[in-house]
Amino acid sequence: MRVAIAGVTGAVGEEFLRVLEKRNFPVSELRPLASARSAGKTIQFRGKEYTVGELRSDSFKGMDLALFSAGGSVSRAFRQAVVESGAVMVDNSSAFRMDPDVPLVVPEINPADIKIHKGVIANPNCSTIILLMAVYPVMQLAKVSKIIVSTYQASSGAGAQAMQELESQARQHLSGEKMESRIFPFPLAFNAFSHNSAMDVVSGLNQEEEKMVKETYKILHSDSMDIQATCVRIGTLRAHAESIYLETDRELSREEITAALQHFPGVQVEDDRKSNRFPMPLVASGQDDVFVGRIRSGKSKSGQAFVNLFCCGDQILKGAALNAVQIAEKL
Amino acid sequence: MRVAIAGVTGAVGEEFLRVLEKRNFPVSELRPLASARSAGKTIQFRGKEYTVGELRSDSFKGMDLALFSAGGSVSRAFRQAVVESGAVMVDNSSAFRMDPDVPLVVPEINPADIKIHKGVIANPNCSTIILLMAVYPVMQLAKVSKIIVSTYQASSGAGAQAMQELESQARQHLSGEKMESRIFPFPLAFNAFSHNSAMDVVSGLNQEEEKMVKETYKILHSDSMDIQATCVRIGTLRAHAESIYLETDRELSREEITAALQHFPGVQVEDDRKSNRFPMPLVASGQDDVFVGRIRSGKSKSGQAFVNLFCCGDQILKGAALNAVQIAEKL
Repeated sequence: MRVAIAGVTGAVGEEFLRVLEKRNFPVSELRPLASARSAGKTIQFRGKEYTVGELRSDSFKGMDLALFSAGGSVSRAFRQAVVESGAVMVDNSSAFRMDPDVPLVVPEINPADIKIHKGVIANPNCSTIILLMAVYPVMQLAKVSKIIVSTYQASSGAGAQAMQELESQARQHLSGEKMESRIFPFPLAFNAFSHNSAMDVVSGLNQEEEKMVKETYKILHSDSMDIQATCVRIGTLRAHAESIYLETDRELSREEITAALQHFPGVQVEDDRKSNRFPMPLVASGQDDVFVGRIRSGKSKSGQAFVNLFCCGDQILKGAALNAVQIAEKL
Repeated sequence: MRVAIAGVTGAVGEEFLRVLEKRNFPVSELRPLASARSAGKTIQFRGKEYTVGELRSDSFKGMDLALFSAGGSVSRAFRQAVVESGAVMVDNSSAFRMDPDVPLVVPEINPADIKIHKGVIANPNCSTIILLMAVYPVMQLAKVSKIIVSTYQASSGAGAQAMQELESQARQHLSGEKMESRIFPFPLAFNAFSHNSAMDVVSGLNQEEEKMVKETYKILHSDSMDIQATCVRIGTLRAHAESIYLETDRELSREEITAALQHFPGVQVEDDRKSNRFPMPLVASGQDDVFVGRIRSGKSKSGQAFVNLFCCGDQILKGAALNAVQIAEKL
């Protein structure tokens, strides 16, 4: 396949290259692209050096696949050019996720949706993908009526510069200097704050939370579940964690939940109560799989069956680049 | 009052001194105490230097109040000596919290319980206090049937050395060195992990989570609520955050919840949707009040009334030293 990558110099773009290499994706031609500001830089792919080209409407001629991770406005600006060139766009931005003509796909969950694409397939938001990788296996065992989720999100969700900012802030704090924030609205080092995406002042939900709800409904083809999400950034670099509470229509044992998770591709169970070892961002970083643990289930005082989970996944990999390449593989 | 402080050289012990000073607590005599290892050190109180004495069974003669924060085993070892001396022990450890003869008190919530003490009053666990400061005002508006809480807990809960360890680890990471963990089982810098207290391998709950449930029932004199807690440490220094979901027996408006929280002593509402400003550990650090925000309420798809909150409180102050001194003030 002839593959164009738009936004190749960003945190996710760089990871597209590594994932394509690692998975031996059949790339017959690679066209690395970025904004005029980053064009001219060089990148490495399979031991060969490539010069990054400027992203333009004629960049996609002769391409089969266009992986996009350059922000929603860039995806919107080039959608028509990509589709007209005959390439399929797999887009990591939020631009088209809720577009009824655009499938929103987690390949382990709704691969069949890929078929209905009209030239564009959207990659879900990182926190949605990681949530559903943990919850979907449980949904194979019982009807889930409620999801209450609180996130512990890494700086990488705001890009490579945000990761650098977190480290700079930590350095500043440790030398007794004032922490400087340019990407984030507040210092993230030694801190936590409500997710910095724009907030709907009426609903009180930020966009990250809205995405978690709406994208989940679209991926599952059902909006029957109650979902309450609280999205929070913490001072980690590249793996998101999520604390998840589910209500189910029958009581599930820890054993059957564990088995369902273990058999699900892309999930690893880490649930060692004796040694207190559970999913951690540092361990999930750089890993393809989503780690799930703290599996607790039972019936509440009121008789409601519930399941608690804690999961961690690499925000740049399964949360972005890996999931997009998996979509391309299914094409 | 003649005041002894056991564990005066620890993170909470040091804060006892600052809180007594700040609140002009009537101290006619101060007796700073610690283990043999720390005895002989000096501390400052109201501009005067004191030498730390060794904690012994005869340390409490002539004292009226003994503030303890030296771990559960120390509290257990000296309970009888304190009670026999005629002093009242206000204990920050978990040793006696579930003892039916020992009141467990958050002064804003159940001050009347202090009266039934038999020489010992227990200070609840930090995460319980901070949870209830946010939830109790809502309970004045409606019956709360369910609490789902996920915590974002600071290193200070494991003591002053743990705070230093977090900073050392951050330094190590930033210089490309391996992070060393002595107090915590895993690196906390740029990471998060399931709370490091001992875990019941059958229930899958760690002690921090068990405390949140059992202490809440005791403080509220009711165990009718469903409580699901997931306790997590993140790389912050001294303020805990908690993401809280409540179910109530009637739908509450954001306005009435806000008003109830604003009128509750010791709580500050920080809920500015327009500027995306909500409670943050860095801002809550060193503050007496518990900050509450992200107030969202409504009815779910299934018709269940709910309230979401996000709160932050200084673990060493309201989570420990301040609450203990407030108990002493009520005595």
